[in-house]
Amino acid sequence: MRLSRYLLPTLKENPAEAQIASHRLMLRAGLIRQEAAGIYSWLPAGLRTLRKIEAIVREEMNRAGALELLMPTLQLADLWRESGRYDAYGPEMLRIRDRHERELLYGPTNEDMVTAIFRANVKSYRALPMNLYHVQWKFRDEQRPRFGVMRGREFLMKDAYSFDVDEAAARRSYQRMFVAYLRTFARMGIRAIPMRAETGPIGGDLSHEFLVLAQTGESAVYCDKAVLDLPIPGAGVDYDGDLDPIVRQWTAPYAATEDVHDFERFEREVPAERRLQTRGIEVGQVFYFGTKYSAPMKALVTGADGGDKPIHGGSYGIGVSRLLGAIIEAGHDEAGIVWPDAVAPFNVGIVNLDPGDAQIDELCAGVHGALEAMGLDALHDDTDERPGVKFARMDLLGLPWQLIVGRRGLSQGTVELKRRATGERLTLAPYDAVAHIGRCLENSGEE
Amino acid sequence: MRLSRYLLPTLKENPAEAQIASHRLMLRAGLIRQEAAGIYSWLPAGLRTLRKIEAIVREEMNRAGALELLMPTLQLADLWRESGRYDAYGPEMLRIRDRHERELLYGPTNEDMVTAIFRANVKSYRALPMNLYHVQWKFRDEQRPRFGVMRGREFLMKDAYSFDVDEAAARRSYQRMFVAYLRTFARMGIRAIPMRAETGPIGGDLSHEFLVLAQTGESAVYCDKAVLDLPIPGAGVDYDGDLDPIVRQWTAPYAATEDVHDFERFEREVPAERRLQTRGIEVGQVFYFGTKYSAPMKALVTGADGGDKPIHGGSYGIGVSRLLGAIIEAGHDEAGIVWPDAVAPFNVGIVNLDPGDAQIDELCAGVHGALEAMGLDALHDDTDERPGVKFARMDLLGLPWQLIVGRRGLSQGTVELKRRATGERLTLAPYDAVAHIGRCLENSGEE
Repeated sequence: MRLSRYLLPTLKENPAEAQIASHRLMLRAGLIRQEAAGIYSWLPAGLRTLRKIEAIVREEMNRAGALELLMPTLQLADLWRESGRYDAYGPEMLRIRDRHERELLYGPTNEDMVTAIFRANVKSYRALPMNLYHVQWKFRDEQRPRFGVMRGREFLMKDAYSFDVDEAAARRSYQRMFVAYLRTFARMGIRAIPMRAETGPIGGDLSHEFLVLAQTGESAVYCDKAVLDLPIPGAGVDYDGDLDPIVRQWTAPYAATEDVHDFERFEREVPAERRLQTRGIEVGQVFYFGTKYSAPMKALVTGADGGDKPIHGGSYGIGVSRLLGAIIEAGHDEAGIVWPDAVAPFNVGIVNLDPGDAQIDELCAGVHGALEAMGLDALHDDTDERPGVKFARMDLLGLPWQLIVGRRGLSQGTVELKRRATGERLTLAPYDAVAHIGRCLENSGEE
Repeated sequence: MRLSRYLLPTLKENPAEAQIASHRLMLRAGLIRQEAAGIYSWLPAGLRTLRKIEAIVREEMNRAGALELLMPTLQLADLWRESGRYDAYGPEMLRIRDRHERELLYGPTNEDMVTAIFRANVKSYRALPMNLYHVQWKFRDEQRPRFGVMRGREFLMKDAYSFDVDEAAARRSYQRMFVAYLRTFARMGIRAIPMRAETGPIGGDLSHEFLVLAQTGESAVYCDKAVLDLPIPGAGVDYDGDLDPIVRQWTAPYAATEDVHDFERFEREVPAERRLQTRGIEVGQVFYFGTKYSAPMKALVTGADGGDKPIHGGSYGIGVSRLLGAIIEAGHDEAGIVWPDAVAPFNVGIVNLDPGDAQIDELCAGVHGALEAMGLDALHDDTDERPGVKFARMDLLGLPWQLIVGRRGLSQGTVELKRRATGERLTLAPYDAVAHIGRCLENSGEE
């Protein structure tokens, strides 16, 4: 993509309304634009990252055997009356009347609707386990939306729902999602730590939150540093096999948010030098809630013994749009965003120092094409602005690699390759630089 | 995908509420489920086709130089007051109040918001032409939603908006979209005919509708049969070049919907044997509307002469969810849907006639893997139902190819390969059948 034909409205100044780094940087880097309190447009570069995050979530859900469908944003109030949640849900639910005065709502979550879908279509235990998920816009009418996409009102969420014949099977479904989440966040280049959590308004008796550690996080967290070094399950993990050892390994070290923190246990179980007290940002949560929805909604399956039983359910959320904020909180510096390779809007920024010089323009177009042929995306800054402006903008946008092309270097037959995260610079022949990027991404690439 | 682990709730009976073939077949084939009047869930197989359609739309928009962003579903009423449309828009607009009694609406279209985005970020003619699009859920509160996704209330639409410095440039942007639309629909395996159209509530003075011909279409259409044989522009079309010859070629033969039909001109210009009078389904519409939004909203750019001028705009819609209905109306028979290759939920259905027979199961898994290795998707019917049930279900679902694997055939070393559209059957060695499918798709493949 050539920047001169792109829409990337970067800002030099910090927007006054943004209180945290990710909100400031998403506005300054031209990723989002506020349309109303807690409601954002995703500008082209922001949308690219949103889609890359969504794709990783989808791949890992599919790998774990979940089936994707798509439920609508609007739901009937009567459906929520059936599950008993309509009156219980507070003012965060956006309630709507259509032209015929029928009561609708903008879905904040989908336990009720997915249970209705399941109930209408699945009758026998033989179809189980089943896990249905979607990636859809939700709305929660926050009293005080803030922190950009971290606490917006219209937000993109992946929510999955498991259906099982009994509690033991439901716990296996829970473990599948637990393991899929470990892989999902790791593939985005972040480490999200599963922590025991309260179950809150979703209900149930078993839940873990996945938190990205960041000083600016919303919750205080307490954990054993051992959890930071645990291995991420590989792509070949057998989701039909026994996942208990992985889950046990990840839940053995102490890790809890302030809501459920047990100070005495923390001191007793964790040696002083391994006690980590910091803050975290929730990016996912998994729940087992048993028959909370299936019993009132009569979502029954015929068991092996011929009798009808309510299914045992769980739900599994990932805050897809919120993840942009969390990833930036965990990865930025004074100059701007520092994207992990897997979710950067573009893998590479080509900084053309002498636009209009036919030889330089041609070389930039050439390396651009070579990167694309390798399956990488690049943003070519072909504008006629000063080098200083271009460097600052690239650092702000935070693309993992910068390929700096100019007359001075080229007179020596070289370009400069800068790694955004470390500031490390290499001087290489142009296509050696392209090959270097390819090799590094291949080595870091996790499938 | 193995059918025994999938959610494909097919129905034997015609649902009473469905009046047209596509609605009946989408419900019967388990593609959608109604959640409220005009509001649907997309079940896994329906979602697969929706995503394939969306991907083609996106590829062709990008090819034509449009930039993707994503605007939210909810908008501020005040934005629509600024453009003067809030009061003009009738009861089809879903008006909402949030917890603070702020007035919102569920966007039925995005001219106003995209103009605000443009105005805030683009100041100079040098950034033009610019075309911004998104693929997002919209809501129109139809008085009487019906015909399934053909006239739903919550629907998925691609809408693009062009910004140009003057009328001549805007007409070139219009032509780019006109040509992109020819390619987009052709790649989906349908022929959509551009017809002169009224501009309606979007305003403006130049518009074409793209209609798929089908006896069940909503509008009567009149056209010169010559338009049915015109060539579709190739993937190499130069969107920066002169598109006038293509547009002239496609707009020269008479083609009009009943709203603007000129009976005398039709008789005068079209020889009797080439006069086609049928019905059509609108799947896209393109508008040039000049300064209708930019003037009231003060979306100005500085021109080459230094003066500020309102930009000249156009908008370009494709009914992404509606296309499923249109494609099915244009392609079905007594037994069910007949999907074009490019948008079928799966390319191939593997009908396992002897599930439980280890050799047959292994062969089915083998051809399944071979198809996937070729980049094709397959649905393997591994259920223990009767062959007749399986054949009827595959015909109903309408996958382009059926690969029928059973003991009887395999004793001769063969499987049967059926082409859904023609009923043609070939008896081949299993992996020859796979190779045959690959060759046919390659030959029909348009990039």
